[in-house]
Amino acid sequence: MSVTAAKGFTAAGSAVGIKKNGNPDLALVVNRGPSFAAAGVFTSNRVKAAPVKWSQQVLKGGRVRAVVLNSGGANACTGPQGFQDTVATADKVADVLGLDAAHVAVASTGLIGTLLPMDRLLPGIEQAAGELSEHSGEKAAIAIKTTDSVHKTAVHQGAGWTVGGMAKGAGMLAPGLATMLVVLTTDADVDAAGLDAALRDATRQTFDRVDSDGCMSTNDTVLLLASGASRLTPEYGEFASAVRAVCDDLARQLIGDAEGSSKDIRIEVVGAASESDAVEVGRSIARNNLLKCAIHGEDPNWGRVLSAIGTTSADFDPDRLNVAINDVWVCKNGSVGEDRDLVSMTGREVRITADLAAGSESAVIWANDLTAEYVHENSEYSS
Amino acid sequence: MSVTAAKGFTAAGSAVGIKKNGNPDLALVVNRGPSFAAAGVFTSNRVKAAPVKWSQQVLKGGRVRAVVLNSGGANACTGPQGFQDTVATADKVADVLGLDAAHVAVASTGLIGTLLPMDRLLPGIEQAAGELSEHSGEKAAIAIKTTDSVHKTAVHQGAGWTVGGMAKGAGMLAPGLATMLVVLTTDADVDAAGLDAALRDATRQTFDRVDSDGCMSTNDTVLLLASGASRLTPEYGEFASAVRAVCDDLARQLIGDAEGSSKDIRIEVVGAASESDAVEVGRSIARNNLLKCAIHGEDPNWGRVLSAIGTTSADFDPDRLNVAINDVWVCKNGSVGEDRDLVSMTGREVRITADLAAGSESAVIWANDLTAEYVHENSEYSS
Repeated sequence: MSVTAAKGFTAAGSAVGIKKNGNPDLALVVNRGPSFAAAGVFTSNRVKAAPVKWSQQVLKGGRVRAVVLNSGGANACTGPQGFQDTVATADKVADVLGLDAAHVAVASTGLIGTLLPMDRLLPGIEQAAGELSEHSGEKAAIAIKTTDSVHKTAVHQGAGWTVGGMAKGAGMLAPGLATMLVVLTTDADVDAAGLDAALRDATRQTFDRVDSDGCMSTNDTVLLLASGASRLTPEYGEFASAVRAVCDDLARQLIGDAEGSSKDIRIEVVGAASESDAVEVGRSIARNNLLKCAIHGEDPNWGRVLSAIGTTSADFDPDRLNVAINDVWVCKNGSVGEDRDLVSMTGREVRITADLAAGSESAVIWANDLTAEYVHENSEYSS
Repeated sequence: MSVTAAKGFTAAGSAVGIKKNGNPDLALVVNRGPSFAAAGVFTSNRVKAAPVKWSQQVLKGGRVRAVVLNSGGANACTGPQGFQDTVATADKVADVLGLDAAHVAVASTGLIGTLLPMDRLLPGIEQAAGELSEHSGEKAAIAIKTTDSVHKTAVHQGAGWTVGGMAKGAGMLAPGLATMLVVLTTDADVDAAGLDAALRDATRQTFDRVDSDGCMSTNDTVLLLASGASRLTPEYGEFASAVRAVCDDLARQLIGDAEGSSKDIRIEVVGAASESDAVEVGRSIARNNLLKCAIHGEDPNWGRVLSAIGTTSADFDPDRLNVAINDVWVCKNGSVGEDRDLVSMTGREVRITADLAAGSESAVIWANDLTAEYVHENSEYSS
């Protein structure tokens, strides 16, 4: 049901000719109110795409009436012309729907460093507006795909209210955020401050802990729009938990569909002196190419886990580190533990547990293995 | 000529049965004096192999009479037994050669997390000692190979004195240091403090700027031994320059032989506000898997360079960044520059120039592309 699961939203997903292959490439999500509260979280990359710069300004007002998203071009590193194109896109949506452009968020995804075909995108907005429907959430999710093999949606039902959403992302996935466009909608009546708190809390523990390939995008955008159409205002904790559940669901779908991957790696760091130590160690393990190759080869090469831990500044004693792979403690006290031949790695999910023996904090990071298919897909992306 | 190019050194490279395939796996380098001054630089990984812990203590005395190196096992993450094995190795060398074990450095390379076969290593030391010769520098260089396709040696001739050396390393190459064992020898008469200064200066600008796969080793060891046999003490700058030349030569050989690589990538960061900014940006570019794949595919995907720069804390304005690939400035002022179709990437060496437009400092980092062969080699290393 995607972004139209919650009441008060319409959506469209149209093929307007931005992608050369004719696949759907333009999505619209429109909030019909009565509330228009919104929150957003954006990439921490200092090189930001034009639509990110625009939408950051829009979200400062805490009010979004429509989101326009295109695949087929990131509109990043496109200079003043690229920014003008984003403004023209928001203006066109505002014009067609009778809104103020200051309430129109824009998101783009695709190749960096090429201008969007505005001669097709602007008429495409008229076409998409004509296709807006309460039943087109799935179509919108399909239209934002790039190298995604499947579209990603999730829904959580509260007591009389709903949180739903869609996501795209299959590569350049790394903390802060993963390369993704995400639009979440709810018919709960929550103000912008409440949405912002719930969204930041959720992304910090979900999208920010997905690290497919260590590469941080220029375009990451996660938006949460509230229509208030349910006329219900849930208790904050309950609402935040629902937002987090939807984000967690979508984040897992991103990892499960990462480019060329054959394994999903769940890295749990336990016994950490602080949560930030746990996250730092988890990311270091997640980014170790040698380990990612070993897991691809179903080789429980735990020495590569230890060498990754050793590059961090976290609190630990190398002689007290313990590591389990799929629950077999192959490393105990920094040295050889249980027999590595006991480890079976045939399933898609591989669990690595790293015990720092330095405290009681923990964190989970999700990553993927490194495969020849990943190399193949990313050797030819722009050519 | 390797470690025996300088006068006053003998070496051996022997097959003693540590490697199951019967290839040479034990090297000895012996300083015959009259001086025994030495300096060493070691991995900054906090998980350090037993021989690293041992050799760091030996080098604190500034005096090394012999180095014993084995391939076929890293003796890392092997606990108290692993450390005892390193001590027994140094003791055996001391015993056979009539030295004090406190002057015997030990280095190991191979798989992490397995104990060395001491029943073959200890008799192997006797065998290698019997094969010591002033002409066996090449053999020593061959005996320290792991996945290296070729052995690596370099020599620099001064006015009546020589600096020579050998290196091994083909994967797990990343700053601080790359995964490598390096032994440099000289017959110049330089004290331990002079050797230490020259070696640190050289490694900082050579081995520390090689980043093949972003993975930092537990075993990196670079040693510089002086015999004083030339009876000459060169001016410091001249000597330091010679040490740097040999390190630079060996570092380039490491990159040229990196596992599964098809491209050597020379990343030069210019216009930086500080040298540390330039190094930080260079390493971020060097570690971007998506860019490494693109270069493998000969795709001048400069957006991936910008997204890598954007993750750093270096001083720059995103709208002033310039990027050249093989001297074609495909990105100017953070946006589209010269036609990317002008870029030819058919050669093995690919040059990326990133201009931060924020100052006058610069640095060069060497990296490799990411290939299906890298994945293949590292999926099966320990099994």
